[in-house]
Amino acid sequence: MGKKEHLSTDPYKGVRDFYPEDQAFFNYFASTVREVAERWGYVEYHASVLEPSELYKSKGAENEELINEQTYTFLDRGGREVTLRPEMTPTVARMVAARKRDMGYPLRWFSIPNLFRYERSQRGRVREHWQLNVDLFGSGSLGADAEVIAVAHAVLTAFGAEESDFTIKLGSRNFLDSIITGLKLGQEDGKKLRGLLDRRAKMPASDFERDVSDIGVALEMLSPSKVPDDVAQVLKSLADIGITNAVFDPSIVRGFDYYTGVVFEIFDTNPENNRAMLGGGRYDNLTTLFDEEPVVGVGFGMGDVTIRDFLEVRGLLPEYAPPTKVYLALPDEALAGEAMKLAQELRAQNIATALDFGDKKLGDQIRAASKHKIPYLIVVGADELASGMFAVRDLLTGEEKKLSREQLSSFFSTL
Amino acid sequence: MGKKEHLSTDPYKGVRDFYPEDQAFFNYFASTVREVAERWGYVEYHASVLEPSELYKSKGAENEELINEQTYTFLDRGGREVTLRPEMTPTVARMVAARKRDMGYPLRWFSIPNLFRYERSQRGRVREHWQLNVDLFGSGSLGADAEVIAVAHAVLTAFGAEESDFTIKLGSRNFLDSIITGLKLGQEDGKKLRGLLDRRAKMPASDFERDVSDIGVALEMLSPSKVPDDVAQVLKSLADIGITNAVFDPSIVRGFDYYTGVVFEIFDTNPENNRAMLGGGRYDNLTTLFDEEPVVGVGFGMGDVTIRDFLEVRGLLPEYAPPTKVYLALPDEALAGEAMKLAQELRAQNIATALDFGDKKLGDQIRAASKHKIPYLIVVGADELASGMFAVRDLLTGEEKKLSREQLSSFFSTL
Repeated sequence: MGKKEHLSTDPYKGVRDFYPEDQAFFNYFASTVREVAERWGYVEYHASVLEPSELYKSKGAENEELINEQTYTFLDRGGREVTLRPEMTPTVARMVAARKRDMGYPLRWFSIPNLFRYERSQRGRVREHWQLNVDLFGSGSLGADAEVIAVAHAVLTAFGAEESDFTIKLGSRNFLDSIITGLKLGQEDGKKLRGLLDRRAKMPASDFERDVSDIGVALEMLSPSKVPDDVAQVLKSLADIGITNAVFDPSIVRGFDYYTGVVFEIFDTNPENNRAMLGGGRYDNLTTLFDEEPVVGVGFGMGDVTIRDFLEVRGLLPEYAPPTKVYLALPDEALAGEAMKLAQELRAQNIATALDFGDKKLGDQIRAASKHKIPYLIVVGADELASGMFAVRDLLTGEEKKLSREQLSSFFSTL
Repeated sequence: MGKKEHLSTDPYKGVRDFYPEDQAFFNYFASTVREVAERWGYVEYHASVLEPSELYKSKGAENEELINEQTYTFLDRGGREVTLRPEMTPTVARMVAARKRDMGYPLRWFSIPNLFRYERSQRGRVREHWQLNVDLFGSGSLGADAEVIAVAHAVLTAFGAEESDFTIKLGSRNFLDSIITGLKLGQEDGKKLRGLLDRRAKMPASDFERDVSDIGVALEMLSPSKVPDDVAQVLKSLADIGITNAVFDPSIVRGFDYYTGVVFEIFDTNPENNRAMLGGGRYDNLTTLFDEEPVVGVGFGMGDVTIRDFLEVRGLLPEYAPPTKVYLALPDEALAGEAMKLAQELRAQNIATALDFGDKKLGDQIRAASKHKIPYLIVVGADELASGMFAVRDLLTGEEKKLSREQLSSFFSTL
């Protein structure tokens, strides 16, 4: 065979390979959020990443741009237009609408889907990320808004964050609408105002003031001290259960058109990281895409990349350790059968055990165990098998402990 | 607003929505296989479902057909050809090749990816399924082949299957190659022989005999009693650790071109279900797509749909129960704040608690809890809050038990 052209080992541009250390973080992320959501009475659902493209097309101009410019959309072999979901909310609205009458309300659902956005290769932006989505359907009570925000707070504290590490900022679409209606602003100016509020933190205060006054809005109408009623009530519910890092911020408006009530974003208090880590709000009409009669909803989404960055900066990332507890090394290939039996004895005691097949040098076998970060090693030689006494080596310290076959399982199960 | 055209609530054709009961099975599937794989020393990895299309193009004619006819392949907005992965083996080979020198061998990896195939809507075939993939890299020892088969066996028994429920059938590509070489068959006839063996169970014995003798192969060469050396050695290793439902079957050849040694499939012993439930084998050259020097591998894949069908027929599917243990119902909306505090007390004891916001009739609240299959209900009224005594109702039997606020947590934590 001649010299071949080799394929690249890179993943597709903008997506990530999850090597064991990456997947260990992902599993920690998923199990932590799952544990919190379930404790709050939420049940898990999921859906395929493929959705009919029309699901994203009927939400107005903003989303037209999204579907046309930023999604993965293609025709399947049968001529159907299909999109890799860019967000989960339309999917969950579709699923709830499909079984609207069979379900009990309030309905508490969560999911951990992957989402795709086609972004031109910006630094640090990925085209696929994973996101916790938490939604509560069928209650218009502001208690539901407060609960969903409290779940977000519980998720962050479950990762080890303190209240001083983050601020929950609440806005209100009702409040914004009342300004727009009160001043009789046109649709264009209403949209402009929302855009200005959304970019407020990123522009000079004087520019903001000039631009809002250009459309006839006085700065004092947008003061954080004028807390709207809906936001005030949610803040009180949160305070009642001990959540004290929530504030009203009139700049919080959220990008999507479908929000209708209280909206919120959670910010890192570290001034060097001024992006929202997490956001959501109330969307009371989304299921009307499918059906006249709405099922009201409130929810949030939180991405794996954002939370990982947040935890990393604060030293809250758990250190990687493989599930494997012990490695059996073999000085002789002929002993593989006996080593396999010993491995089976340990596994029967729920001790995660890997073994070598003895087809390379003992030193290489031990180095392999160290590369895998497996904490303990046992050399299974003819002498050990004959005497029934095994030296258990701590691969970090090099310390050894001699144990009988029977003592091994109790040694590992107490670790 | 006039009458609108509504969107369909159906998912994209051929993919599934995972409502809570479906997701509960998926989580049971994932946690069961994860627990087994980790006990055997395997660590989890993952990758994006998007792969450069070229990954599937360079494996010969059979896969050309696959990529051209049966995959989801499209151009991204930057003109790159991208495919939704139809199988995981090329991806894992790519990832191993990328970090070949940094890793310890044998390398034990598993993953639970989703895979896509574009299939014309056949009955019961789905276009997306999820699959456990288990692979062992870097050992040419037949002990590795035996181990991977033993993991498959351990997975099935972890789901509650008995050895009498399934048969492990082993074939050998070496054996097949030795027949082809021994009889000096051309490439065409070699391929024909493999195809005939693959279809043997589905064709009349006389047709099989005629067709193999047409290409010059005597039936006795393909007898199950002529166990090849590699298969015999693997069968012995399996027997040594107590696995007795494995046999040699010369018809086991596996579809993919990349297999090189022992191959295997596991069949349901129920004669009404004669499809393979699971399959795999040794593929020693796959990483040479990326690199001259191969990392040898052996592995298998097992799909979620197949295993679910197998468990369902045998009554081994666990019954659905939500994670939520108790539901708080409110006769009065004004008590929502107090109910939220009680819910928080219970959650602090790790009792999964959901509550109503009291904005509908008590009877409707209780019916909602029953629809969710939540096992217990507490009505949180003014009297209960004043007296500190709560009636805990078993929603299945209707029985009630009066408990103080302090007794609640111990009641639920002993369930």
